Amino acid sequence: MEYLTIHAGASYPVIIGEKALSEISQTVRELKPAVTSVLLLIDEKVYQLHQQTIKQHIQYDSLFILPQGEKAKTFSVYEQAMGEALEAGLDRHSLIIACGGGATGDLAGFTAATYMRGIRYIQVPTTILAHDSAVGGKTAINHPLGKNMTGAFHQPSAVIYDSLFLKTLPLREIRSGFAEVIKHALIADPEFLEELLTGVSSLEKLEPSFLQYALKKGIQIKGEIVSRDEREQNIRAFLNFGHTYGHAVEAWSGFGEKLHGECVMIGMIYASLLSIEKTGLDFPIEQFIKWVKSLGYEISINAPFEELHHLMKKDKKNLNRNIRFVLLKAVGQPELVNIESSELEYIHQLLKRKEEIQ
Amino acid sequence: MEYLTIHAGASYPVIIGEKALSEISQTVRELKPAVTSVLLLIDEKVYQLHQQTIKQHIQYDSLFILPQGEKAKTFSVYEQAMGEALEAGLDRHSLIIACGGGATGDLAGFTAATYMRGIRYIQVPTTILAHDSAVGGKTAINHPLGKNMTGAFHQPSAVIYDSLFLKTLPLREIRSGFAEVIKHALIADPEFLEELLTGVSSLEKLEPSFLQYALKKGIQIKGEIVSRDEREQNIRAFLNFGHTYGHAVEAWSGFGEKLHGECVMIGMIYASLLSIEKTGLDFPIEQFIKWVKSLGYEISINAPFEELHHLMKKDKKNLNRNIRFVLLKAVGQPELVNIESSELEYIHQLLKRKEEIQ
Repeated sequence: MEYLTIHAGASYPVIIGEKALSEISQTVRELKPAVTSVLLLIDEKVYQLHQQTIKQHIQYDSLFILPQGEKAKTFSVYEQAMGEALEAGLDRHSLIIACGGGATGDLAGFTAATYMRGIRYIQVPTTILAHDSAVGGKTAINHPLGKNMTGAFHQPSAVIYDSLFLKTLPLREIRSGFAEVIKHALIADPEFLEELLTGVSSLEKLEPSFLQYALKKGIQIKGEIVSRDEREQNIRAFLNFGHTYGHAVEAWSGFGEKLHGECVMIGMIYASLLSIEKTGLDFPIEQFIKWVKSLGYEISINAPFEELHHLMKKDKKNLNRNIRFVLLKAVGQPELVNIESSELEYIHQLLKRKEEIQ
Repeated sequence: MEYLTIHAGASYPVIIGEKALSEISQTVRELKPAVTSVLLLIDEKVYQLHQQTIKQHIQYDSLFILPQGEKAKTFSVYEQAMGEALEAGLDRHSLIIACGGGATGDLAGFTAATYMRGIRYIQVPTTILAHDSAVGGKTAINHPLGKNMTGAFHQPSAVIYDSLFLKTLPLREIRSGFAEVIKHALIADPEFLEELLTGVSSLEKLEPSFLQYALKKGIQIKGEIVSRDEREQNIRAFLNFGHTYGHAVEAWSGFGEKLHGECVMIGMIYASLLSIEKTGLDFPIEQFIKWVKSLGYEISINAPFEELHHLMKKDKKNLNRNIRFVLLKAVGQPELVNIESSELEYIHQLLKRKEEIQ
């Protein structure tokens, strides 16, 4: 088991590893002021697969099962979750526990952030992708006109990350989540990137102990950035590396068609190519592309540039209608740069030529 | 013109009086970082009555007209307002201006609190009631199961309170709003209460200069409490004096049937009677009832106790299913007390006997 502390808002613990769930009761008991009641918001697939374990470890007074994945993040489910909290009689000292992937955590966190103007919640992430989203307090739901455009900064009271859930993850979900691990290495830690490049040759045969190490590293990097800029006034935007183009690809494909991390990987390659042009990043991009392809990532894009461009204009990092990208001066040295449309199109074409790399 | 500063979150100005609106352009210009675009959310009635003045003084890039009063505070209007903000291309440095009564401010403030996880907003209150709600950063929408149960603490960047709007207020709205002025006196300032008792003999003939003085006093009292407890960990709950029973009466009558302040007045008399029993409050309650009746307040209640009791159980101040009341030890000395059901019923009956006072 690994123990970390995140210093954002009040400090809170992250417990990672096998049997982490067995610590949740004590974690809840130790919260001050004492918890008056618990509402569990859980992804339906997770509930179906792990009902017994959940019941064994998590004590809750009421339960609301959420639709799978992004379907949980609608205004309608948000209103339903609020209704459940009200029916259950949650008060200001009550607790919400979010058990599921990133979407579950986002919806449950936003519900906690806004129920009676804010109550506490604990994240129990069940995917690799959620190693990223469960930490740092970004919560959100989706609007038909934009993903994550409605939300709040609201730090969890704890993150309990039990590896038992990862064992039932489909390979595609592992791959999606691992893209964010690679992102954390790219923006913050050249040595960690080297460990990944040399240590990971297959996502099917990932050693559990190495995975736990990599997730801990990723969470540490994220926690460090969030503690220095909780509300994304400046450096927290670096965590968006790969997300500007990546989000556009994800939206264009229809959310859920391509998984978030699959799109972020494409976005990171795009942002790396752009960095090589703009900041003089010295990075063996072709070798990197070969590696990620060997791990099963697809980097081909069918979307016309104009449509991606239109979507990128809606990015939350933008100011005054300028598109802003996180670029790398070097691995571990990100910066935020305004980019012209003509440059964006050039890199889009360049990326398409890289699709052929084997 | 009166100028106040509220110290909650970052400090922000409150400008009160005739021609306050003429200062809004400069207020917006002085915000840091510079405002990139402005969305005006305005109550339809206010827009209808004051369109010319609004256009003359408020510079905005986009406009969304809200349904009148509490109808603005649904999940559906919230989602629409988010859509308008997205359509208008608001970014993180954009500004929302809320122009209307308390409901407009609540909806617009919650939209600002959660658009891209929080952008700035300015309150332009147009009612007397909103002297209370526009200051202090409480924002919310209603759930079918409970009023103001979904919301956020999010301080405005400024409050611009122009008395021109008050001139078109119906008498009933003036009366509703003035109840909160009286509340501020009761919880914090015996001298101010005395000034009201002796100085106000009719709400129809309220001197504009006295009204401005009373509103400034009310805002000062509220600002002082909010600055010491922004997130209602303790003393901010005192602002809820009269609201436990009052909210229940409001909900029972159907929101909008009785106005908020009309119900708060009933709730304050109830809480005063309860204080006399519980804390030994020394207060000439019959004389007070005569005064408020002479101002046109109705204090008769048709609701059966059981139904009000059921509604009071849902109050946000409650913890562990105990009903908590703000009581007065003396005028200006509030305290928070758990109350038993039997006592609540006794006071309900006592209040009904006071209906006859002339």
